[in-house]
Amino acid sequence: MRKVAVLGVGMSKFGKHPNRSLVDLFAEAFFEAFESSNIELKDIEAIYYGNFVGEMTDGSANLAGFMADEVGLKGIPAIRFEGACASSSVAFREAVKAVAAGHYDCVAVGGSERLLSAGTAIGTRALATAVDGVYEITAGLTFPGVFALAARLYSKVYEVPLEKLKEAMAYVSIKNHKNGAANPKGQFYGKYGNLKVEDVLNSRMICSPITLLDCCPMTDGGAAAIVASADLAEKVIDDPIYVLGTGQASAGSLFRQGKEMVKALSRKRSAEMAFKEAKLTPKDVDFVELHDCFTIAEIIALEAMGFFEYGEAWKATLDGATSLDGELPVNPDGGLIGKGHPVGATGVSQVYTVVKQLRGKADCNQLKNVETAMTDTLGGDFTTLVNIILSIHKR
Amino acid sequence: MRKVAVLGVGMSKFGKHPNRSLVDLFAEAFFEAFESSNIELKDIEAIYYGNFVGEMTDGSANLAGFMADEVGLKGIPAIRFEGACASSSVAFREAVKAVAAGHYDCVAVGGSERLLSAGTAIGTRALATAVDGVYEITAGLTFPGVFALAARLYSKVYEVPLEKLKEAMAYVSIKNHKNGAANPKGQFYGKYGNLKVEDVLNSRMICSPITLLDCCPMTDGGAAAIVASADLAEKVIDDPIYVLGTGQASAGSLFRQGKEMVKALSRKRSAEMAFKEAKLTPKDVDFVELHDCFTIAEIIALEAMGFFEYGEAWKATLDGATSLDGELPVNPDGGLIGKGHPVGATGVSQVYTVVKQLRGKADCNQLKNVETAMTDTLGGDFTTLVNIILSIHKR
Repeated sequence: MRKVAVLGVGMSKFGKHPNRSLVDLFAEAFFEAFESSNIELKDIEAIYYGNFVGEMTDGSANLAGFMADEVGLKGIPAIRFEGACASSSVAFREAVKAVAAGHYDCVAVGGSERLLSAGTAIGTRALATAVDGVYEITAGLTFPGVFALAARLYSKVYEVPLEKLKEAMAYVSIKNHKNGAANPKGQFYGKYGNLKVEDVLNSRMICSPITLLDCCPMTDGGAAAIVASADLAEKVIDDPIYVLGTGQASAGSLFRQGKEMVKALSRKRSAEMAFKEAKLTPKDVDFVELHDCFTIAEIIALEAMGFFEYGEAWKATLDGATSLDGELPVNPDGGLIGKGHPVGATGVSQVYTVVKQLRGKADCNQLKNVETAMTDTLGGDFTTLVNIILSIHKR
Repeated sequence: MRKVAVLGVGMSKFGKHPNRSLVDLFAEAFFEAFESSNIELKDIEAIYYGNFVGEMTDGSANLAGFMADEVGLKGIPAIRFEGACASSSVAFREAVKAVAAGHYDCVAVGGSERLLSAGTAIGTRALATAVDGVYEITAGLTFPGVFALAARLYSKVYEVPLEKLKEAMAYVSIKNHKNGAANPKGQFYGKYGNLKVEDVLNSRMICSPITLLDCCPMTDGGAAAIVASADLAEKVIDDPIYVLGTGQASAGSLFRQGKEMVKALSRKRSAEMAFKEAKLTPKDVDFVELHDCFTIAEIIALEAMGFFEYGEAWKATLDGATSLDGELPVNPDGGLIGKGHPVGATGVSQVYTVVKQLRGKADCNQLKNVETAMTDTLGGDFTTLVNIILSIHKR
């Protein structure tokens, strides 16, 4: 297989866009990515697009062709991927595989979503479609419930007092909100930058032990990236970011996962796949953009990805290991909690941040001496898991 | 690239399945496909799954992982594709490309949908999400309207008197209903096998000139196929069906297509791509399974695919060219009109019919001396187009 690299990346401001369509939000991100890619429009041979619930929020499915037409790429193959919150990460991974195989030399990848403008009622119903529709939604389980269960299970399985765990979760919230407050493209730019543990613990209870500040917000937004063969990338730009490895795995209903839920085995499998392909280990990763849909989700992710032993990431979090100046900075752009979570755009927005950080051109919180980084995106209750390892080194 | 072949194929009975889930319908089709593939479950490395509107009909998105888990393939990469009525054809094409590249040796492809059980109100709203959500749905345009426009435009552009065109459309309905009446897995098995032109013209007016019998029905159902490298296929079965070529293309809103709508340029592009890859021409195709969502759609498809000149297929249809004993049998299984249209399953159900026909084991209307055939699936108003050429010959 050929090596694949990222050219330009783009991202709309995350937040509320009541008067802009899914097409508008993708197009804004696409053109930012395209303009920094130093290619011509005709070089782009396909669009791989992620969206979760356009049917429900905008009455629009079958969206990929409209994206292609809008940005001037009339007629090219255009594919919509849906894997809940991992939708555009699935699209990114499949695009990378298609370019690696030589099916295409250059593909545009991206995603967009309008959840905040859809309003809480539609947004909540839409988000709930990512859990099992037969056994879970019908039992009233929505995502705060899923991750409240996860937190309580974590506490029990690893024998961590719930009060200590809640403190670690609060620290995730404080850190990601602080990082996000510095992000001019984030939903909470300039806000919530100085939270205290008490603020998180005492914010509105959503589903015990998950409080409002343990949750990521609903968001509208778009993200895009141009991926190409390494050969093409090296011809047109000076700073290709190479895709060293990707992984994807799946899981079934929560009741089938049982206690293994807190081990996030689909993520373990996906991360191991990515590391194996990259011929790297967790120690080679300088920072991570991961799926902190809720604070407990960040702690679970860090373990399943292999950065900490099972049952240990809560402690490492309290010790500051995941801070900007820690041993493994996590979510320097604010993550889902601090930056916002326009579901179908989230995966590629992680790629956006990683690429800009690795180029030393981050929108905020530029890290020093970062060469290799990893993304992690989770769709549903561990149902769709994707990991991507990116680097300045071709290897 | 490696050659790719189809092993087993499967399909649920099409019709009404009020008490069966999207997972159930996929699983039934999957196991029929699997059991005739002579492989072990562990040989299947990924699932590529098509579904259009599970969010709206069943409250379920993010479905691919649940499919994998249900059929015993816990953990493998599982991807949901959505391209309206072409959803599982997109999945099939991407699976073929992934196997051709060597990413996988063996992939399960399929789709399922529950539109009939969803009821007319939800079903109609769900189907409408496949047209442009900003300019078309808001103007009240649903699919009978789209194809009524297409029929009137066809009549005007090619100067075919509307009465003559309606007669040709009626013939499509008569033929596909007759073919479908013989199909034990079809929605209308044993029904509507002896329609007359007057029956079609006088059936309930839906959107002039489209009458009820010009329309395909709403349907629940599932379909599946196992695709593998030709090398693997030749090891495990005696009768691989080879994928000689595939094509995919896109289009934007109808108002941007304008009069070109009746030329279905995305289909022309997609079909030419498939023929080029297969190194074949329309003359090499022995029969076709194509997207007759409405009778006029079959006429438009035959021209854009290259089987007849633009403005000529209505005449060829009246002359019987597309009958079972014509020069190019079209939709021997009944097509969408006679067999039913469980949207996300439709594309792979076309592959099901083609594979069984080419093996001489059709469920109905077995054609003689057929060696190479083509499928055609249309998502939305020409927004997502996929064509697949299958053959008993490896070439």
